[in-house]
Amino acid sequence: MNRTLAIDVKNHVGEEIMLKGWVFQIRPVGKIKFVILRDRTGVVQTIILNKEIDISNIERESVVTIYGKPKIEKQAPGGFEVEVTGIEIIEKAQSPLPFEVNRATELTNVKIDTILDHRPFSLRNSELASIFRVQAEIVRAFAEFMRADGFLEIHTSKIISAGTEGGTNLFPIEYFEQRAYLAQSPQFYKQMMVGAGFERVFEVGFVYRAEDHETSRHINEYLSLDFEMGFIESEQDVINEEIRLLKYMFDSIQKNCAEELKLHNVTLPKIDAIPQIRLSEAIKIIKEKYNKKMEIENDLDPEGERLICEYAKQEFNSDLVYITYYPASGRPFYTMPAENGLTKGFDLLYKGLEVTTGSQRINNFQMLVDNMRKFGLKPENFEFYLEIFRYGMPPHGGLAIGTERLTQQILNLKNIREASLFPRDRYRLTP
Amino acid sequence: MNRTLAIDVKNHVGEEIMLKGWVFQIRPVGKIKFVILRDRTGVVQTIILNKEIDISNIERESVVTIYGKPKIEKQAPGGFEVEVTGIEIIEKAQSPLPFEVNRATELTNVKIDTILDHRPFSLRNSELASIFRVQAEIVRAFAEFMRADGFLEIHTSKIISAGTEGGTNLFPIEYFEQRAYLAQSPQFYKQMMVGAGFERVFEVGFVYRAEDHETSRHINEYLSLDFEMGFIESEQDVINEEIRLLKYMFDSIQKNCAEELKLHNVTLPKIDAIPQIRLSEAIKIIKEKYNKKMEIENDLDPEGERLICEYAKQEFNSDLVYITYYPASGRPFYTMPAENGLTKGFDLLYKGLEVTTGSQRINNFQMLVDNMRKFGLKPENFEFYLEIFRYGMPPHGGLAIGTERLTQQILNLKNIREASLFPRDRYRLTP
Repeated sequence: MNRTLAIDVKNHVGEEIMLKGWVFQIRPVGKIKFVILRDRTGVVQTIILNKEIDISNIERESVVTIYGKPKIEKQAPGGFEVEVTGIEIIEKAQSPLPFEVNRATELTNVKIDTILDHRPFSLRNSELASIFRVQAEIVRAFAEFMRADGFLEIHTSKIISAGTEGGTNLFPIEYFEQRAYLAQSPQFYKQMMVGAGFERVFEVGFVYRAEDHETSRHINEYLSLDFEMGFIESEQDVINEEIRLLKYMFDSIQKNCAEELKLHNVTLPKIDAIPQIRLSEAIKIIKEKYNKKMEIENDLDPEGERLICEYAKQEFNSDLVYITYYPASGRPFYTMPAENGLTKGFDLLYKGLEVTTGSQRINNFQMLVDNMRKFGLKPENFEFYLEIFRYGMPPHGGLAIGTERLTQQILNLKNIREASLFPRDRYRLTP
Repeated sequence: MNRTLAIDVKNHVGEEIMLKGWVFQIRPVGKIKFVILRDRTGVVQTIILNKEIDISNIERESVVTIYGKPKIEKQAPGGFEVEVTGIEIIEKAQSPLPFEVNRATELTNVKIDTILDHRPFSLRNSELASIFRVQAEIVRAFAEFMRADGFLEIHTSKIISAGTEGGTNLFPIEYFEQRAYLAQSPQFYKQMMVGAGFERVFEVGFVYRAEDHETSRHINEYLSLDFEMGFIESEQDVINEEIRLLKYMFDSIQKNCAEELKLHNVTLPKIDAIPQIRLSEAIKIIKEKYNKKMEIENDLDPEGERLICEYAKQEFNSDLVYITYYPASGRPFYTMPAENGLTKGFDLLYKGLEVTTGSQRINNFQMLVDNMRKFGLKPENFEFYLEIFRYGMPPHGGLAIGTERLTQQILNLKNIREASLFPRDRYRLTP
């Protein structure tokens, strides 16, 4: 007999079926017992009327096979119930369980560290599991949109000999007799692939930052959604590409993750235009309108990001806002300069958090070499990157989206670790 | 004016258009000059009849804008030609070039190391670039098939505290004050995600092997296509899933990469059934039919793989063959045992090369712990992995496909490095 999934029970009323899954709940109501079974498609209520079927030795979360006949039952979840004719244990679960997973509300009292210590088990909870269904849809929609727009998917090495940002915050690797590092970004490689002639490339891949922060918005390994495109006029082409991308991604999530969004009480914003504010203007607004002291002049701090998003919400009714024209001092050497010491670099903030960094890049070989020197870098250490700029590099730009941050902001999660299956931070290396 | 791509020139006969791309070839024929322009969609022939248009300072591979009017010209590639009204240099290419890229044949004389030293530039050659279009299609089709079959895409950490195979061949990372390693495989994590309740998961991600080999079939960082599925009856469910997957992937490549396959003179095999041979039988065949001495009894060596594929081709007219029932001594501790010291582990060989390793896994907690001890591993070091087995782990199995090896075998490439954008091996860390 083939297995019937919970979601398909409704199509087999009156037939003998076989279910397989985890025992989600056991509920005695007088002499009748209900066993709620969970599989990857949802839950199904089964009812044991036959007194010869003994379930006294069945623990919650055990893996079982249940035989029975579905019937219509309006009070059951989904409107159907399976009358049990037999039940077999496949794998018994130990008890007690690390914590309760069968009622969403109870997990709100479990600390994030406890959840992460028992990460696989925690995902037996539908609300926590739904985070990663949304994340999978983010990645799927990203790749689908990019491909349809002529971008080629690439996979570039994460073991590198030199950092993209000049050697800080790198994790060293013992690579045979050599010293190597984990890649902080596919930046150099995606640019090189534009110059290779692919023109438009995207990558979904982990990147690594050896940053000391221990905050709710930083993890040391994160999934970066990168794209890079050639033959642009300015950074505005990159911004417009992202607006169309986000619109597509949000529409896809709304359509394919409606249930998951409901579990998190989330309505996604309609994306049309996204306002842009120059960094200098943003700082002025934060100082004057919110009376906040700003220590730095070449970036926003977390509080500044929060405030300017508050402003964008009030002023433009937008959850999203681009901050543009960052000073060269706060951006990497490959960023295309604009007038007055500024650059064609931008960030996208979403509900108070930076989720994207991008820019037009320098495409002229000599200008790039000169800028490296200005930044105190030795061009001879970067010949592997520079070479393609000698042989015709078109104007280009691109950006990177932090997948976990985007997931976090879409679902209003408090901590970025909730949006990472196996987060790595200053102290966490397991599970 | 919007840019017209090479592939769209045919739709603009008689109109004024703007092309952008790289100068692929410059051909003077008497007093007339032809400039072949290349962009991401292909090449287009342009003709300069106006003597006032000076192209004497234009070098091959420079990035240019060409204005002109397309007309029908049967002798031109694609059947159209653009009569040039203006040409502008965007970025000049230096000369000489590292090697010729505009004639496929000339690259056959360039050594693989020279190609890799100039990797981005080498991809200006359409044959080399096509390898990565096929690879992108492999990845796309893999993910699409898996999703349609109810598998959830996951991304699991590549920074781990303990190896899946017991600590050998790991690259150490300096992770703040701790010692960590690059993941050899997402094995533990994908199993844990089956147990988390997702039942069916897949992952596309890099894995790392600190193996000393310097061969045409090994690289130290490769892209692994992994899946893992719960509620199976045996390893045959995993094999059947892969056969359907491969059929889908090969059909997709045939359909979406017809031109790339033609460049490599490749016809893909029709996949229906794939023969299975037990390892013991394979060894017997290799010894008796091919008169080869076999040193090991728990695996095939490269020559053995080649010979058994030769046999499968002769006997079953199949490019693909499963080798099954490997002895426990040659498989990892989590492999489900079969009778007589054998396991439910299998490999898939394709034209002489192993491209997949898979198995049914042990799903019983106690059996797994006992097997770890038998393998000399300490279960207490693997509690992060073992925990979910305490709380109900269904029967499950899965496999991993090496993306570069599959690409290599599909396109008949001599060296796996040709199928990696930025290969990492014993000595190569750049570009």
